[in-house]
Amino acid sequence: MEVTTIGQFSLVYNVFSFTVATMAAATLFFWINRSQVAPEYRTAITITGLVTFIALYHYWRIFQSWGAAYDIDLVAGTISASTTYAYNEAYRYVDWLLTVPLLLIELILVMRLSKEETIKKGTTLALLAAAMIILGYPGEIATSDGQRWLWGILSMIPFLIIVYQLFVGLSKAIDAQPAEAKGLIKLARNLTVAAWFFYPVVYFLPLIVPLEGGTPKAIIEVGYSAADIVAKALFGVLIYQIAVRKSEAQGYQPQ
Amino acid sequence: MEVTTIGQFSLVYNVFSFTVATMAAATLFFWINRSQVAPEYRTAITITGLVTFIALYHYWRIFQSWGAAYDIDLVAGTISASTTYAYNEAYRYVDWLLTVPLLLIELILVMRLSKEETIKKGTTLALLAAAMIILGYPGEIATSDGQRWLWGILSMIPFLIIVYQLFVGLSKAIDAQPAEAKGLIKLARNLTVAAWFFYPVVYFLPLIVPLEGGTPKAIIEVGYSAADIVAKALFGVLIYQIAVRKSEAQGYQPQ
Repeated sequence: MEVTTIGQFSLVYNVFSFTVATMAAATLFFWINRSQVAPEYRTAITITGLVTFIALYHYWRIFQSWGAAYDIDLVAGTISASTTYAYNEAYRYVDWLLTVPLLLIELILVMRLSKEETIKKGTTLALLAAAMIILGYPGEIATSDGQRWLWGILSMIPFLIIVYQLFVGLSKAIDAQPAEAKGLIKLARNLTVAAWFFYPVVYFLPLIVPLEGGTPKAIIEVGYSAADIVAKALFGVLIYQIAVRKSEAQGYQPQ
Repeated sequence: MEVTTIGQFSLVYNVFSFTVATMAAATLFFWINRSQVAPEYRTAITITGLVTFIALYHYWRIFQSWGAAYDIDLVAGTISASTTYAYNEAYRYVDWLLTVPLLLIELILVMRLSKEETIKKGTTLALLAAAMIILGYPGEIATSDGQRWLWGILSMIPFLIIVYQLFVGLSKAIDAQPAEAKGLIKLARNLTVAAWFFYPVVYFLPLIVPLEGGTPKAIIEVGYSAADIVAKALFGVLIYQIAVRKSEAQGYQPQ
């Protein structure tokens, strides 16, 4: 799939630039403001910033790759795919392989469960997330529909286990959170699941409806970027707010 | 040895990008979270971050070098080695010459031996590591198999002395570590040795089996990257965990 008009190309190009700026700003916010939360929440905030930093790196590569992958003739008003440089779809998967396990770990860390539970739940969720991404990739680069269905469905198995873990496995731990933070933690959990449902929709879309012309490609790239901003930067702001509320509740005063 | 298909080229390219992102994230994590460990462990954490930072620099150079070393024609679907720019194999050795002695020093530092023992064991291991890398390089760039065997075997002498030192020379010191950290220190020691055995395997492989086509080159580059991620970033996380556990055990509270 490729975009076919300069307008589609420019829209995606500008959305990528917006995403780079958003991820950079989010990263700096988390790291600069890290001392506003009590020491026991700082590892969660460090990792929140790592997630947006890793996304910043990959969106920068995606942005550069997108610019190099098309040749534009402004006089004729035409656009064509480059013959020497392909848009690199793999950056998204490489990014997710690092960031999705870390996202789940930051949610577990900000809850401050017991050491055993933190290690157990953090490891389980991180490994499930890695399995989900690794199983999805062969389908993404497959040339046949059958292969895309197969790997997509396999990838949905760890996906659904993660959703189940977040809603059922974590419900007792969420209920035990202090009142000031409980609502925000539920919101962060629900936001994760809602943003995540966008990814399988995009993944299976080309199998269900015939996608022609450049519009679907533009929609997919803009959609993935929006979902990444919600699942990483906005989710990170919620994690930060949870850490601030819990720090205040236990009487922490930033120095 | 060169890769021969666009698929092999892209796989290695994406693994290099993944390694860059991993080393950058690891470096920032160690340095930002350095205040979470007691002051006497902070030099170990600074050096842990230096190792991944040096690897970040070299993987960035390796990544750029790899991209420049091949010419791709997407229309014909062909790839050929560039006639003006060779992939620079030396970056790995330059990296190891700096990082491998530092890796061993970070392991010694986190153990908090006596001052004399720290200096003695740190210096011995660092010099052995430097000798191992320096002796390996002439074999890596040699054009004859005899030369590769000769330097490879010479390089194995300090390698085996290091393994002996880690298992026998350090065993008394490891047994004297606090119970909270002993298991993790053994794991870090074993992980180092396990990851390190990958390097001589790759080094001697072309001498033992005839390597044809592009697959062996792709396997070697992916394998070196995976071994570096384990031996530097994952090893660093273990060193950080050891420092956190020992800090907690002695009653340190992050401010």
